[in-house]
Amino acid sequence: KMLRRVLCTVLFIGALPSLAEVSQGHISVVLLGATGDLAKKYLWQGLFQLYMDQVSSGHSFTFHGAALTALEPGQRRMFDVLKKLACPPDESPNRCAVLKDQFLKLSQYHQLKTAENYTVLNREIEMLLQQEGLKEAGRIFYFSVPPFAYTEIARHINSSCRPPPGAWLRVVLEKPFGHDLESAQQLAAELKSFFREEEMYRVDHYLGKQAVAHILPFRDQNRQFLDPIWNRHHVERVEIVLKETVDAKGRTSFYEQYGVIRDVLQNHLTEALMFLTMELPDNVSRAEEVLRCKLQAFQSLRRLEKNSAVLGQYQAYASQVQEELQKARNYISTTPTFAGVLVHSDSLRWEGVPFLLTSGKALDERVGYVRVLFKNRAYCTQSETLRDAGHSQCKAKQIIFYIGHGTLNTPAVLVSRNLFRPVMPKGSWREAVGQSDLHIFGQPLSDYYVYSPVKERDAYSVLISNIYHGRKDFFITTENLLASWGFWTPLLASISHQPLRLYPGGVENQHLLDFEMVSGEVAFTLAEPVELLNPSKVMPSDYKTIQSKFRQSPLVSAWSEDLISQLASDIEKTASRTVAHSGQFHLALSGGSSPVVLFQRLARHHYAFPWKHTHIWLVDERCVPLTDTESNFFSLHNHLLQSVRVPYFNIHPMPVYLNQRLCVEEDRGTELYAKEIMALVANASFDLVLLGMGTDGHTASLFPHSENGLEGAQTVVLTESPVKPHQRMSLSLPLINKARQVFVLVLGKGKHDITTLVSRVGHEPRKWPISGVSPSSGQLAWYVDYEALLG
Amino acid sequence: KMLRRVLCTVLFIGALPSLAEVSQGHISVVLLGATGDLAKKYLWQGLFQLYMDQVSSGHSFTFHGAALTALEPGQRRMFDVLKKLACPPDESPNRCAVLKDQFLKLSQYHQLKTAENYTVLNREIEMLLQQEGLKEAGRIFYFSVPPFAYTEIARHINSSCRPPPGAWLRVVLEKPFGHDLESAQQLAAELKSFFREEEMYRVDHYLGKQAVAHILPFRDQNRQFLDPIWNRHHVERVEIVLKETVDAKGRTSFYEQYGVIRDVLQNHLTEALMFLTMELPDNVSRAEEVLRCKLQAFQSLRRLEKNSAVLGQYQAYASQVQEELQKARNYISTTPTFAGVLVHSDSLRWEGVPFLLTSGKALDERVGYVRVLFKNRAYCTQSETLRDAGHSQCKAKQIIFYIGHGTLNTPAVLVSRNLFRPVMPKGSWREAVGQSDLHIFGQPLSDYYVYSPVKERDAYSVLISNIYHGRKDFFITTENLLASWGFWTPLLASISHQPLRLYPGGVENQHLLDFEMVSGEVAFTLAEPVELLNPSKVMPSDYKTIQSKFRQSPLVSAWSEDLISQLASDIEKTASRTVAHSGQFHLALSGGSSPVVLFQRLARHHYAFPWKHTHIWLVDERCVPLTDTESNFFSLHNHLLQSVRVPYFNIHPMPVYLNQRLCVEEDRGTELYAKEIMALVANASFDLVLLGMGTDGHTASLFPHSENGLEGAQTVVLTESPVKPHQRMSLSLPLINKARQVFVLVLGKGKHDITTLVSRVGHEPRKWPISGVSPSSGQLAWYVDYEALLG
Repeated sequence: KMLRRVLCTVLFIGALPSLAEVSQGHISVVLLGATGDLAKKYLWQGLFQLYMDQVSSGHSFTFHGAALTALEPGQRRMFDVLKKLACPPDESPNRCAVLKDQFLKLSQYHQLKTAENYTVLNREIEMLLQQEGLKEAGRIFYFSVPPFAYTEIARHINSSCRPPPGAWLRVVLEKPFGHDLESAQQLAAELKSFFREEEMYRVDHYLGKQAVAHILPFRDQNRQFLDPIWNRHHVERVEIVLKETVDAKGRTSFYEQYGVIRDVLQNHLTEALMFLTMELPDNVSRAEEVLRCKLQAFQSLRRLEKNSAVLGQYQAYASQVQEELQKARNYISTTPTFAGVLVHSDSLRWEGVPFLLTSGKALDERVGYVRVLFKNRAYCTQSETLRDAGHSQCKAKQIIFYIGHGTLNTPAVLVSRNLFRPVMPKGSWREAVGQSDLHIFGQPLSDYYVYSPVKERDAYSVLISNIYHGRKDFFITTENLLASWGFWTPLLASISHQPLRLYPGGVENQHLLDFEMVSGEVAFTLAEPVELLNPSKVMPSDYKTIQSKFRQSPLVSAWSEDLISQLASDIEKTASRTVAHSGQFHLALSGGSSPVVLFQRLARHHYAFPWKHTHIWLVDERCVPLTDTESNFFSLHNHLLQSVRVPYFNIHPMPVYLNQRLCVEEDRGTELYAKEIMALVANASFDLVLLGMGTDGHTASLFPHSENGLEGAQTVVLTESPVKPHQRMSLSLPLINKARQVFVLVLGKGKHDITTLVSRVGHEPRKWPISGVSPSSGQLAWYVDYEALLG
Repeated sequence: KMLRRVLCTVLFIGALPSLAEVSQGHISVVLLGATGDLAKKYLWQGLFQLYMDQVSSGHSFTFHGAALTALEPGQRRMFDVLKKLACPPDESPNRCAVLKDQFLKLSQYHQLKTAENYTVLNREIEMLLQQEGLKEAGRIFYFSVPPFAYTEIARHINSSCRPPPGAWLRVVLEKPFGHDLESAQQLAAELKSFFREEEMYRVDHYLGKQAVAHILPFRDQNRQFLDPIWNRHHVERVEIVLKETVDAKGRTSFYEQYGVIRDVLQNHLTEALMFLTMELPDNVSRAEEVLRCKLQAFQSLRRLEKNSAVLGQYQAYASQVQEELQKARNYISTTPTFAGVLVHSDSLRWEGVPFLLTSGKALDERVGYVRVLFKNRAYCTQSETLRDAGHSQCKAKQIIFYIGHGTLNTPAVLVSRNLFRPVMPKGSWREAVGQSDLHIFGQPLSDYYVYSPVKERDAYSVLISNIYHGRKDFFITTENLLASWGFWTPLLASISHQPLRLYPGGVENQHLLDFEMVSGEVAFTLAEPVELLNPSKVMPSDYKTIQSKFRQSPLVSAWSEDLISQLASDIEKTASRTVAHSGQFHLALSGGSSPVVLFQRLARHHYAFPWKHTHIWLVDERCVPLTDTESNFFSLHNHLLQSVRVPYFNIHPMPVYLNQRLCVEEDRGTELYAKEIMALVANASFDLVLLGMGTDGHTASLFPHSENGLEGAQTVVLTESPVKPHQRMSLSLPLINKARQVFVLVLGKGKHDITTLVSRVGHEPRKWPISGVSPSSGQLAWYVDYEALLG
C-alpha cells in the first residue's frame, strides 16, 4: 500500500506543469512528531504554506509525517490534520484548493521507531528520486518530539538517513534545549556527535515573530537616525515583555520543571534583548557576523544576582500541580510563573541602561512588546495648555516593536513622531492608519508613526520558510544557546532560596506585581502581603545555635550573598566614620577570589562611599606584572577601581615589578612599600585590613612556617607560596596587627574544615598564620558564610 | 513744623495703651527713596504690615521717609502714598483703621541730601528718644535708591546717623549689586568701609516669596523622606523657572544694561538653586551654617560655558530700546530678554543632574516655580487601562515649590502622592482642597498633596518682618553675592558673541523657545529660523585673509572655545582611528593652563573616546610631588583622568619623585621613563603629542638655550626653567619629532607677539625651541586662536 502511494506521488510529480522547472532538485521534509500538538497547531500549516510559496521555485517536494504510532492509526490521524489545513485569506480559493490537493498527495505517514524504520525511509526516498530521475537537493528533519527522544532519533538519522554527498541535511530542533548550562552543554555535545553545526536549526519561534525579526533590519535601515541615539546617553530604559492571560493548567508536568525563566526569558526575551544590545554588523543578514556580535553582547551582560529578579506564582498554581501531578495537599511548588528581571550590559554603549525583562502567566492581558524609551532632554518653554497640537519634543520618545495581541492586536513597529520617520521596507511593512483613539504606552496612537506587516504571517510559517532558504541567522546556534544558558544559570541557581510572591491572577493582580529598580536591583513596590510564599527559606538546621563569637571576636554569618552585602555596608560605615573623623581612610585589601564579589558589591551598590578620601593598599601580591590576570591588583582594578573614583595618588599597588624585574631583593620593593606606608599612614596603622583565610590556614601571603612576616620588625616581606606563582609580597603579621580594624572574610564549603579547626586552636601563627591575627589595640571581626561555618 | 510733627508723634506714643510694654526700646525706620516706585508699590505697605504685626511687641516705632525732594512736595507725595495703604483682608477693618491712623502719625518725611540733613535727622531721633525716656533698640535704613547713590548715603549714615552703642544698625540694600564680579566686588568693598557685614541686609525679594522661603524648612522637616532620594540617583532633573508675560517697555534704560541673566537668574533663580543643592545644615535657621553650606554648593557648580545657555530677545524689544533710549533705527541691542541655562553641580550628590534655569519676558504666561522631577524606576506589570485609580508608582514623581501666578495662582508646595505625605508646619501651611480638574505638570491636581500658605503674604512684608527680627538668613551676604557673580560672570563674558533668537512674544512663541540638552550643553530644538538675530558675530576684520598654513603646516584658527572643540574632536578622531588600527593609542599631553579647557572638554563631551585603550603620557613635568597643585599631572588628573576611565596601568606620570626626592640625577627618573616608553610605545613613536608654546618660544619644558633635550640621543631629560619651579623633566625634541602626529595649541592675546615672531623664523631651536618641532615622518598641525593669531 505504501508503495502505491509513493508511485502515486511520483506520477503526480510527473504530471505537474512545473516539471520542466524542477531543475533545482528535490527536497524531502520529514516531520517527526507529525501528530503532536505543535504539528497539529502550526507545523503542518507552515509546511503547506511553504509548499504554496515554493511550488514554482524549481524545487520539488515530498512531505513525510512520522511518529511512533503504527502505520494505520498514524496515517489516519495525520490525514485528519492535513484535511483541516486552512487556506490563507490572501490566496485565491481555487488555487489553494488545487494546491492543497497536491500537498495531500505529496504527503505520507511513516512509523519511525526502530533503526530499520529509518533505513526503510531512506530507501524509499532514494527509490523515488531514482525512479523520477530527480537530483536530491536536501532533506529537512523537523524534531517535534520531547527532548529525551532527541539522541535516539539523531543517531538513526545520522547513521541511516543522511542524503548523498552534494545534498544538504537540515535538522530542526525545538526547545527546551536543556534546563541549565550543564544539561544544555551535554545535549549539545550529544547532538554534535551526530550533526555538524551548520546542519542544526534550533527554533526559537520568537525569531519568526515579524516584529522581533524586524529589530535588526530596522536598526540597519535606520542607522542614520539611530546611530546618535542608540546608546546610554539617550536611552532611558528598555522593556521586553511577554504577558499571558492563560495559566499553566494542563501543562504543569512540563511547567513545574521549567518555570517562566526557562520557558520564556532564557530564550524568547533574551533573543530580543540581543537584537537590541548587540553592535550592528555591516551585513545584518550574514549569520556569522550576527552571531559574532551577539556573542560579544552576551559577554557584556552583567552577572545576574539573586536580587536582579522579582518572582511570583499565581495562587491557583499549587493546587493545579497537586492535582495534575498527584502531589500531596501540602506540596509546595517553588516554580515561578511570573518574573521581572533587571539586566544590565556593561558595554560602553549600554552601561547603566536598565533592560527590564518581564513575563508571566495569569496576568491581566495577553501582549508582547519590546519598548525602547528615550530620555527626555527637552525643556518646553511654552506651557502645556498653550502649546499647539504639534509633536513637541517634550512628549515621550519611544520605539516599540509590538509583537502582537494587546491593544493593537497586530504586530507593529511604532516610532514616536518627535523622533524620526523610520525607513521601512515597502514590500513587507506598510503605514497603518486610523484607530487614533487608541492609546499605547501613555500616548495616543497619532503620536507615532505606525507600521504593520503587509501580510501578517504566523511565526512557524516564517521559520519554515527560513529553514528552506537556509537562513541560519533566524536560528539559535550552539554557541548562542550556551551563552544564554551561561547568563541565566547563575540566577536560576541563586533564586531557589528566593521567596515567591503569590498573585491572584488576571486584573485582580492590580499593583501586586509592580516592581522598582534601586541600585541595580529590583524589588516589588508594595510591601510583602501576608500571603507571601516562602517555602524554601532553608535555614541551617542548627541556626539557632550559631555562636555570635569566633575565636573570642565578633562573628557575622549568613548565606554568602547576604554576608557580602553586610560586609560591604560595614566597610562603608567604617569608611564614612573614619573620613569624617580624620579626613582619610586607609584600606588594605587582600587578593583571591572571595573578595571579587565584595569588590563588585562595593562598586555597584555603594554610591555614597567616600572614595575620594580613601587610600587603597594591597595586603599581598603575586610576583607578576600588574597587568597580568593573576595579579591581585589587576583583579582589584577590574572589579572595583575601574568603576569608582579613587584618585590616582591614593592607589598603592605593591611594587612587585621594578626595573623590569619581579620581586628581586636588590630592587628593595618591600622597603619602598614600607616607606610609602610610613609616609602616608599615621602610625603605620591601617584603618581597615581585609583578610581571607586559605585552606592551609594562611592569610595575606603569609603561609605556614614562613621564614618572613610572621614576626619581627619587617613590615613588608617577600614570601614563598606552596602554589604557583610561588613568589609573593605581603604585609607582615605585626603590621596587620597594628590596624585599627581587621575583617576576615571566609566563604564556601571548601573552607569548612579549616574554619572548624581554627575555631579551636590557640595562638599558633607558625602552624596557622591566621591564628596570629590579633590586633594589638584594634578590633577584629569574622565574616564567615554558612557553608564555611556549617559545612 | 517738623518739630511739631515729632512732638505729635511723641505725644501719640505716650498715649498708646501699649506704653507699659515699650520696654524693648525704640526702633527708627528710615526709608530712603520714600516716594519711588518700589516704596509706593511694596515698601510702605510692608512697613505698615510690620507695624500692625509688631505694635504690641514691646518695641516702639517711628517711620522716616526720605528723598532728595524738598520738604513740602516730598511730604505731600509721601502722604499721598501713605493714605492709600491697604488693610489686609484678614485684619478687622476697625483695628486696621485705628492702626493706620497711628502709623500715619508715626511717619514723617525728611529731605536727605546734604551731610547736614543727616546730622539733623540723627539729632531729631536722639531728641525724641531723650524726651520720651526711651531706650534705643536700633535703626533700619532701607536703601530704595539707584545703586550709584549708595556710597554717598552710606558715608553719611556711617558718619552721622549711627545709633549709640548697644543699639543696632541695619541697612537694607536693593539690587542691582553690581553688574559683574568686578563691579560687585568694588561696590562691596566700598560698603564694607562704612558698614560691618552683620549690619547689611541685601534684599533678594525672592527669599521673601513664601514657596522659596519654605524650600529649606521643607527639606529640613522632611529629612526622613528626602534623605534617600534627594540625590543624583533619584532626581531626574530640576527646573527653576520665572516666566513673565510683560515685556521691558518703559524700563529699557535699566533693562538694556542688565538683561535677563543679571535681572533674574544671577539673583532670584540662583538663590532657589542654592536652597535645593546645598547640603542641609543641622540647623537651617542659623544664618552662618546656611551660608557655609551655600558657599560650598557654589564651589561645586560647574563653570558655565557659552553653550550652557540659549538666549532670546522678543521682537519688539529693539524698537522699544530705540524709542526709549533715543537710539538710531539701525541700533541693534544684544541684551537677552530670554535665557535658558543648564547648570550642573559636580558635588557627589548632584553630579550629572541637570538644573534648568529659565526666565524671560513676553512669554505665554506669568508663573514661577521650582520643580524637582524624580526618575521613574518602576515597572507596572498591570496594563495602564486595567489599573485602578490609585497612586501608581508608574506615574511621575515630583516635588514642586510653586512660587505664584500661573494655573494655581497661589504659592504652593506640591508633592506627588506616590512619593510621600510631607510634613508641613501646621500654623503657616494648610492642605488645599478642591480644584481637582486642574492639571499641573502633566498630572491632575489630585495626584499631589497640595499645601498653600494659611496667610498669603507679600514678599516685601515677609522681608521687612525678617529685617525686624534680624533673620540674616533671608538676605544675601557679601560672600554669597560674590560667589554668585563669580559663577555668572564667565557666562556673561562669553555670551557677548552668542546669537540671540528673536521671538514674537506671547503664545505666538509656540515651540520657538523650546530647548534641549545634549552632552552637557543646550540648544534650541527648532532649527534657526530666518529671523535669527546675530549682530555681534564679530569676526576678525581680516578673517578672509587668514592663512590656512602656519610654518608650512596646517593651521586651524577660531575663537578659543570653538578652537578647543575642534581640537578635542580631532584628538578623538585620531584616537578612534588609531585604536581601530593598532588596538591602543599613546597620547602625550603637556601641562600649563591652555590644556585645562581641553581636558575638561574631553572629559565632558566625548563619551565615545576610547579611553580604555588609551595610554596617557606626560610631555613635561615640574619637579614637585604629583599631588602638588603645581604638578602638571595633578592638573591633568583633576580635569581629565578623574572623570574618564583610563585603566590605572595606562597612566604614566613622569617619575619626578623617587625615593622621596625630587628630580635627583642619581635616582635616574629620566632613564626610568625612557625605558617605560621604549617598553610600551612601538618605536618610541607616540601616536599624538600635544604641545603648547611659551611667550619665550619654549615648548614642552625645553627652554631657549637649554643644555639638554634640544638635540642628542637622550629621550627624556631634566631641564631648568627660567621661572619657578625651576627644575623640570621633559621629553626631548628628538623624541617629540618621532611622533606620528603633533598638535600645538596656542591661546590668548599674550601669545600674539611670539606667534607672529615664530611664524617668520626658520629652524632655530636653540633660540626658539618651538621652531625645532618638525616630526620626521609624522604630521604637525597648529591650533591657534584668533587672539594669539591676530592680537
